[in-house]
Amino acid sequence: MQKKHLRIAILGYGTVGRATVDILQKRAQSIADKSGVYIEVVAVLLRTAKLDIAPSVQAIATCDRKAVLEDENIDCYVELIGGVDVAYSIVRELLSRGKFVVTANKAMLALHGEELWALARKNNTCIGVEASCCAGVPLIRAIADGLIANSIHAVYGIVNGTCNFILTKMEEKSISYKKALEISITQGIAEADPSLDVQGLDAAHKIAIMSSLAFSLKVSFSDIAVQGIDNIDQVDMRHAKELGYRFKLIAAAYKVKDGITIWVRPVLLIEDHPLAAVKDTFNAVSIFGDTNGHTLYYGRGAGGEPTASAVIGDIISIGIGNWQSLFEYSGQWQDLNTHRNQVPAGQTQHRYYLRMHVDDSHGVLAEIAAVFTNYSVSFATVLQKKVENQDTKQALLIIITHETLENNMKKVLSALENLSCVYDAKTMIPIFDLDEEKIASLK
Amino acid sequence: MQKKHLRIAILGYGTVGRATVDILQKRAQSIADKSGVYIEVVAVLLRTAKLDIAPSVQAIATCDRKAVLEDENIDCYVELIGGVDVAYSIVRELLSRGKFVVTANKAMLALHGEELWALARKNNTCIGVEASCCAGVPLIRAIADGLIANSIHAVYGIVNGTCNFILTKMEEKSISYKKALEISITQGIAEADPSLDVQGLDAAHKIAIMSSLAFSLKVSFSDIAVQGIDNIDQVDMRHAKELGYRFKLIAAAYKVKDGITIWVRPVLLIEDHPLAAVKDTFNAVSIFGDTNGHTLYYGRGAGGEPTASAVIGDIISIGIGNWQSLFEYSGQWQDLNTHRNQVPAGQTQHRYYLRMHVDDSHGVLAEIAAVFTNYSVSFATVLQKKVENQDTKQALLIIITHETLENNMKKVLSALENLSCVYDAKTMIPIFDLDEEKIASLK
Repeated sequence: MQKKHLRIAILGYGTVGRATVDILQKRAQSIADKSGVYIEVVAVLLRTAKLDIAPSVQAIATCDRKAVLEDENIDCYVELIGGVDVAYSIVRELLSRGKFVVTANKAMLALHGEELWALARKNNTCIGVEASCCAGVPLIRAIADGLIANSIHAVYGIVNGTCNFILTKMEEKSISYKKALEISITQGIAEADPSLDVQGLDAAHKIAIMSSLAFSLKVSFSDIAVQGIDNIDQVDMRHAKELGYRFKLIAAAYKVKDGITIWVRPVLLIEDHPLAAVKDTFNAVSIFGDTNGHTLYYGRGAGGEPTASAVIGDIISIGIGNWQSLFEYSGQWQDLNTHRNQVPAGQTQHRYYLRMHVDDSHGVLAEIAAVFTNYSVSFATVLQKKVENQDTKQALLIIITHETLENNMKKVLSALENLSCVYDAKTMIPIFDLDEEKIASLK
Repeated sequence: MQKKHLRIAILGYGTVGRATVDILQKRAQSIADKSGVYIEVVAVLLRTAKLDIAPSVQAIATCDRKAVLEDENIDCYVELIGGVDVAYSIVRELLSRGKFVVTANKAMLALHGEELWALARKNNTCIGVEASCCAGVPLIRAIADGLIANSIHAVYGIVNGTCNFILTKMEEKSISYKKALEISITQGIAEADPSLDVQGLDAAHKIAIMSSLAFSLKVSFSDIAVQGIDNIDQVDMRHAKELGYRFKLIAAAYKVKDGITIWVRPVLLIEDHPLAAVKDTFNAVSIFGDTNGHTLYYGRGAGGEPTASAVIGDIISIGIGNWQSLFEYSGQWQDLNTHRNQVPAGQTQHRYYLRMHVDDSHGVLAEIAAVFTNYSVSFATVLQKKVENQDTKQALLIIITHETLENNMKKVLSALENLSCVYDAKTMIPIFDLDEEKIASLK
């Protein structure tokens, strides 16, 4: 039932490139029967001639970039090179030639999306980007298509599988961040240099792409507040769990009074929060629309096959013309968007978890309470514990506050540091509980 | 930024019709800015002249069915009449005229989908059906578009909000089915005649539509095994909870050895199953694809606004031509599908929960165990409890089995009925735990 034949080139032969070629070589006909689009891989561009090329790929593999990019018989290019600069330069060249591009490159899109979309529009082509956010979970389609009738108020979720795996292991096995990172590297989940993931940048790329679409927003990437998971202490994880909370790295974008706030940071979620149950490398994203309310999308946010699922979906969509018409008709794309005020994370409201050590003596709690009162922050829960090594005559104090501005909390911490009875009052973690009711009040 | 202008008629002015007209009258311009499609409601067809028509609707409201259906200026009709026969006759007429139709009518699609899709194809038009399954959750798009590169192995979930609300209340408040149904009627969640929901038929309509698309299957609706929630006993809910299970009405379709099984029934889920946390009127559906693994979609599965979100999304998709091309290119639609073996629910494998009363005397458990052994069913958990009113000298026995064929379980129950030491061995509830690993083994 093949109705359309597309000739594609795969640029890059890493995990996703291999999975994509493999699936298309094995299942092109069954995919064509289902979708109407027969996808023929005619070239695979390698960075260097490698030894471990699958036998079926050898005849079409090449390192000759110029020949592949200028091949008039190729309809659509799948950019799976990764990194930013080389990919960006190649994609620009392809779009300038009016070629269709499918990419999983979130960093490139977050940093250069506006220019790339404009170039695609100018050359009457388009870029398939489903694979850039949470791999095969059809999130970009949900925002750009399924929920199009909605004015979107919030998009947030767990969008980095490596971080979620590390946090899950830290919690399940009561191990340190360092130990959990080692496990994730050993299991091939984290990369040898995990900094892009664990420092939150990968999640920031994804929330930049999603929020740009969801809010028709020209995102200023450098204004996204980004904090990773590499400073999370097992001690806090244990205390938070006792109090009924779970640590998650959340990427969020939502409307607030004076604009939109976009941030990535570790937060605490109450244990029955829908995202608290998302474990290991799974991702999940909640979207709140004015008409549709809360919808949530869950699945594997990384890996060769799940990403290939999105890549092939995009190729098919280009084959039948649907990506093009979404791009042509809809006003959501980054080149058409306008800047709006990106409200700094410090001006957002949360409840907070704080941990510190204090002198275990009379009047200390009153002294601390006075500081909080001074900055109009009130306690919701106070938990005082003996320190196991009692030589110090200190107590551990965990405080959960009512909702307040982050800037107030910073002032509280700084004032606490000046109290002689308080030690290491540095740990302050927001408790994130943006639900439909709260979103309705923010509108 | 309006690029396309569509004139639509809304057929039916119930909850969804009202919400759709209301949103389009208030937000047509902002929706056009975002989507590129300006939607003008030019007619609202009423069944009878009603008194409570919104002022803004009065000028376009009419009971003149013929005039609306034959109006040459209308591009697209939104069928929100409900029921089957009248809607079916109207939709046939419209498709015969080559008009675009958007519908939320799951009963009509489940029973007549094949004919309607064929008629649409013959007349070079199409039917937007996103709203028919779980309202505004973009599930149809996920199956037909986002996951198109996958061969789908299983689709299952909670697709009836009324049943889920009743089960949630039964569990939370420890009340009977009857009492929970009353609450749901009082709160306007269940209809005055709730039978379509509580007997599982509405869920069966939805799984018929989804499985047809997911498996390119010509579904035989009458071969779907359907069981509702109206016989669930609070006693079982309490015991199940003690053992770490939750009751949910699940609609499922998945590949088994000799074909595909499709059923709707109350089952037990382990309490950390992703669907066990889905409460109140929310819906959630899991889809397992060969490439993408497990993805899950969650949201409000009913109600005026969420359904309007899907309806308007479909109108936009028709406006820009995307529904048409999905229908034209893809081989998944019901008129193109083929029959495959629908394996009866009795031939599927589950673990089972059983409840019975037994004589509280020596040797009884051995006698019961012998019956199970006879049919090759083994125990996983046995829980014996004193009956509170001890006049009877009976004990309550809860058994959880290892995995077995439903047909074996029926034989066990029937044999237990013949034991003089066993009373009312009638309650048998499957424990549903189809996960990725099990699906991989079924392939």
